[in-house]
Amino acid sequence: MTLTFPDVIDRACCDEFDRADPLADLRRRFDVDDGIIYLDGNSLGRLPTDTPARVARLIGTEWGKGLVRSWTDAEWMHSPRRLGAKIARLVGAGDDEVLVTDSTSIDLFKLGVGALQARPRRPVILTEHTNFPSDLYIADSIARLFDGRVRVRRVARHELRAALDDQVAVLLLTHVDFRTGERHDMRALSDAARSAGALSLWDLSHSAGAIPVDLTAAGADLATGCGYKYLNGGPGAPAYLFVTRRLQAELTNPIAGWLGHASPFTFEPEYRAAPGIRSWMTGSPPVIAIAALEVAIDILLEADARALGEKAGALTELFIRLADAKLQRFGFELVTPREPARRGAQVSLRHADGYGVVRALIDDGVIGDFRDPDVCRFGFPPLYTRYVDVWDAAERMVTVMESGAHQRAAYAQRAEIT
Amino acid sequence: MTLTFPDVIDRACCDEFDRADPLADLRRRFDVDDGIIYLDGNSLGRLPTDTPARVARLIGTEWGKGLVRSWTDAEWMHSPRRLGAKIARLVGAGDDEVLVTDSTSIDLFKLGVGALQARPRRPVILTEHTNFPSDLYIADSIARLFDGRVRVRRVARHELRAALDDQVAVLLLTHVDFRTGERHDMRALSDAARSAGALSLWDLSHSAGAIPVDLTAAGADLATGCGYKYLNGGPGAPAYLFVTRRLQAELTNPIAGWLGHASPFTFEPEYRAAPGIRSWMTGSPPVIAIAALEVAIDILLEADARALGEKAGALTELFIRLADAKLQRFGFELVTPREPARRGAQVSLRHADGYGVVRALIDDGVIGDFRDPDVCRFGFPPLYTRYVDVWDAAERMVTVMESGAHQRAAYAQRAEIT
Repeated sequence: MTLTFPDVIDRACCDEFDRADPLADLRRRFDVDDGIIYLDGNSLGRLPTDTPARVARLIGTEWGKGLVRSWTDAEWMHSPRRLGAKIARLVGAGDDEVLVTDSTSIDLFKLGVGALQARPRRPVILTEHTNFPSDLYIADSIARLFDGRVRVRRVARHELRAALDDQVAVLLLTHVDFRTGERHDMRALSDAARSAGALSLWDLSHSAGAIPVDLTAAGADLATGCGYKYLNGGPGAPAYLFVTRRLQAELTNPIAGWLGHASPFTFEPEYRAAPGIRSWMTGSPPVIAIAALEVAIDILLEADARALGEKAGALTELFIRLADAKLQRFGFELVTPREPARRGAQVSLRHADGYGVVRALIDDGVIGDFRDPDVCRFGFPPLYTRYVDVWDAAERMVTVMESGAHQRAAYAQRAEIT
Repeated sequence: MTLTFPDVIDRACCDEFDRADPLADLRRRFDVDDGIIYLDGNSLGRLPTDTPARVARLIGTEWGKGLVRSWTDAEWMHSPRRLGAKIARLVGAGDDEVLVTDSTSIDLFKLGVGALQARPRRPVILTEHTNFPSDLYIADSIARLFDGRVRVRRVARHELRAALDDQVAVLLLTHVDFRTGERHDMRALSDAARSAGALSLWDLSHSAGAIPVDLTAAGADLATGCGYKYLNGGPGAPAYLFVTRRLQAELTNPIAGWLGHASPFTFEPEYRAAPGIRSWMTGSPPVIAIAALEVAIDILLEADARALGEKAGALTELFIRLADAKLQRFGFELVTPREPARRGAQVSLRHADGYGVVRALIDDGVIGDFRDPDVCRFGFPPLYTRYVDVWDAAERMVTVMESGAHQRAAYAQRAEIT
């Protein structure tokens, strides 16, 4: 269902969109009865209502009663692959291409080093200036480690293709920009990287779970993503990593730990890599956190991927239209692309008093966030965000701006700091 | 209290030891009413009774209601350092020397690479043949990464000191051997490493929480340890790492991620390391797992460290005496040192049918574990193990051996495999 917005939008019309929303039932699977308009699911997703009971069972029964036997009896040992195979369906990968392990930053490091070792004659990690800072820091960490042999080249977004020369080992990009919400053309860039003989490494933290991702169709080589944003796995949830089947024999996990061993429990003195994706495991899996993440992924997999992407496009479209109509006069400037296919499920507005605006909105029950120097960021996770939430958020922004609450909030904050 | 064992030990005497045990009350803080004699806490510790409620509150209230605000309001962001400071008290470190992050294997990698970069003219990681396999694999991973510049030298335990020459950058050892339970003299070896100009890196996974560890008194440089064995943090609990204050300015985290940045939330394009131990963070902290681990550490900190070590010595002494008296005739051979100061809280017995013995014991409610090729491993975590448990375990072993259940169990297993 692609929505057609009328010329004049009102709350009743948003209410009607919600009644027609094919994903509306899934909202009830989250703890949403708090009167808060939560537009920060791109930072920490909401709590699924089934998570507390699942985690309680894991802790009380599987751990408390099953004890060490649960590594096999409750299939803890298999959980990184079982959940990896589910996430694979969400990102268009094969069930033997995805694994849940470590954090996004550690996974970027492992995949990045693996890529460089597979392209030993190529010294460059290519990325863009505005990539997520941790991704940039990890790229720099890798370069430092290779001590002169590898360097990081950061270019502007429009210079990426031209920079893909025969020196580039790996193109490291975040699919949707954390600050602006702008989406890369994953297929075109993965193709360009491959044509140049480089590998593509995608950070899906700000896209998977909110908009359709199809790594196979895009011809992506490597990817990782965060479990606690649009995937709703809970604070500090583990990340996942993807290595295309095409490259599994060629790339090696540079941090080979016992869980990636072909036979971890024979405790052999020499490492023998497990076949396939399991070789990318390092230490023991974070079993409790994996259980929490699995509940959330099961809900996402009930959603029609196409409907999810369409709703993300419609929610952000609605917010952009309301911002155009109601917020421009207060000095807000749209940062996010207007074309739905060129953005994620997020809209960012620049404002000179951005920090105060976000603070005042939070005080008023609308949670977004602020990114230096002047960006107000609003996420619209399609699983649990309603069209009326978008309407109400825009209305409350108008109230905040008219009342001057944003200036008072900014002033209070400055007083706190100084 | 150092126990004096009578010449003839019986169950009543064990019962008396339990009544006099200064740690007896702490056993009630664990979920132990299952009739199981659990001698595998060195693999996965027991569940503290307070853990389910603490995790439920974190998930239901802090995450579900507090949402993204809990990073500051519930101090999630600070939790790796807060819990690190608590673990520091357990291992004789300063509260600014320990951090909870990643897994033991990842932490070994980070610390090992950091140590090598700090000793650039020294090409050797020195370790022993029988170190925990994952530690060996990580050492090999590091050497591969430095591609010819670094090599791993594995020697026998008695050759370690002689091998500490001017080529060694880092001495990588596990404090208590996972297979035999033998304990290194941490102070003597840390001293020897320092005298040779090398850094010492200790894996405390099989010692901290069960026997006294004092990193400061031992003059240790670097350390890491597992959260889910004697620390009782739950399956896949995060690990902790220690960098002595003396070296914090000299060593650098080789996987620099955003959480180790001096100012993570200003999202600066260039990395600036946080001061001190926080620079060893990489990705977002596993908040749910940290909450579970913190409950368990709080209990450990209520125990008198000296009493804990003495009880570990007494429980293992009791089991060794019972094994001498009752089990030798069935062909069991003691692998663990007889001198309490030379072992951890674990006793290992070699037996030709070891696998069958452990299987049959598990069927009979005594959980230990088996390590190739023939080692039956029994852990005696002093926090929740009673002297009568030791007595009953030995008695049941006698019953198993007399009934031949171990042979039937081994046969059933072989049938399953073939």
